[in-house]
Amino acid sequence: MLLTNDDGYDAKGLASLVDMLRDFADLVVVAPDGPRSAQANAITVVTPIRIWKLEEQDGLVRYKCSGTPADCVKIALYALLPKKPDMLIAGINHGTNTSVNVIYSGTMGAVMEGCTEQFPAIGFSLDSHDPNANFEPCRAHIRKMVQKALSEGLPEGVCLNVNFPVREIFKGVRVVRQCRGRWNERYVHRKDPSGRDYYWLTGEFLNYEPDATDTDEAVMKAGYVSVVPCQIDLTHKDSILKLESWNGN
Amino acid sequence: MLLTNDDGYDAKGLASLVDMLRDFADLVVVAPDGPRSAQANAITVVTPIRIWKLEEQDGLVRYKCSGTPADCVKIALYALLPKKPDMLIAGINHGTNTSVNVIYSGTMGAVMEGCTEQFPAIGFSLDSHDPNANFEPCRAHIRKMVQKALSEGLPEGVCLNVNFPVREIFKGVRVVRQCRGRWNERYVHRKDPSGRDYYWLTGEFLNYEPDATDTDEAVMKAGYVSVVPCQIDLTHKDSILKLESWNGN
Repeated sequence: MLLTNDDGYDAKGLASLVDMLRDFADLVVVAPDGPRSAQANAITVVTPIRIWKLEEQDGLVRYKCSGTPADCVKIALYALLPKKPDMLIAGINHGTNTSVNVIYSGTMGAVMEGCTEQFPAIGFSLDSHDPNANFEPCRAHIRKMVQKALSEGLPEGVCLNVNFPVREIFKGVRVVRQCRGRWNERYVHRKDPSGRDYYWLTGEFLNYEPDATDTDEAVMKAGYVSVVPCQIDLTHKDSILKLESWNGN
Repeated sequence: MLLTNDDGYDAKGLASLVDMLRDFADLVVVAPDGPRSAQANAITVVTPIRIWKLEEQDGLVRYKCSGTPADCVKIALYALLPKKPDMLIAGINHGTNTSVNVIYSGTMGAVMEGCTEQFPAIGFSLDSHDPNANFEPCRAHIRKMVQKALSEGLPEGVCLNVNFPVREIFKGVRVVRQCRGRWNERYVHRKDPSGRDYYWLTGEFLNYEPDATDTDEAVMKAGYVSVVPCQIDLTHKDSILKLESWNGN
């Protein structure tokens, strides 16, 4: 089983995941050498990348990698592992990946990379950016979901985006759709010590459908674990017909 | 009209796009300060970004930005432009963005960013990595498509991924779906001058459905301009039902 994340090899969420899955399978961890949040599906093509083996013990090998989360998956599959893993798990992310966050998320970038390779891939995220967040309440659900995906597989071309609210006990699990929304951004504009301008991104999530009850954002805020089946085929099929007037010679 | 790309502010594909659209509308170009290929939807959150105004003349303002293509769109909207643009155009990319390339593409990352903001967004790509590629054959199609999207709009939540084959005359335009496939990777593994290992990503596209005729990859290879309507909602809706056994308390 291949594990990665986007918060870096030394994040608590990843250590928690390793601890939760240690007795399930042999684990290989290939994680970025530092934070790679919001790296999406980015891959490193114009520079080389490096890897370091950190630890090798019975049933657990850990590497860190200078690349992105998607790079970690690629280098594991094409340079480190003798055969394809049975599954890819990414996380546990420090911060939610509901709604539009899925397109920016390095965690979900790694998961989508696994999905292109046609083995089951799941990303787990907790709605807290606290570096010392308590991931223990997720344990039973993560073990159950990983077991289920291992034994039953996932639909072809589909990976899972699983988000946990911050609670001791969850109300349940809901398989739902991605909420529509975006980030309403604001740039902090300052001058550096040399007097040159710099801009720093900040913002607030804007929910386009705050009254919906069947979205990841809605069920997570209501105390449920949200599960969104995600695809890497971005085609909006209904629009193929809608845009037929674009066809022509 | 906002323009960007992922090959950098000085790429020929972007200059060609500016030339093709110059008489359509006032253009604002905000492009990365160097190559940002394969940056997907990555955004810069842990470091500040910088912008430089390169040129301002009647109907054309050009900036370069130290961030990713998606950063370029965000900073244009939230720090540079007095109001939302009528449209976002990205490209013309040096290299195809058909099939799974859409999830890695910085060009399409910028386009998806525009799509979250709910205005029409189109990415144009040419199937050639030649820095001096000839983009002229695309001119008439790009002008027609931009005019059509301006006058008719695009379906809500949908942006376009347009790919041109390398030809003097195209066979026509086809609105199609994203081809299933992935990259079959290989890492060049060498030692640097200090004797330390490095790995460099390379690979070949693997088409999962080489016999299909209704995919972007198929029609482009056959000499057509391919148009794929893309969405930022990654939900695989059929799987919500398939996974209903995952629901529970």
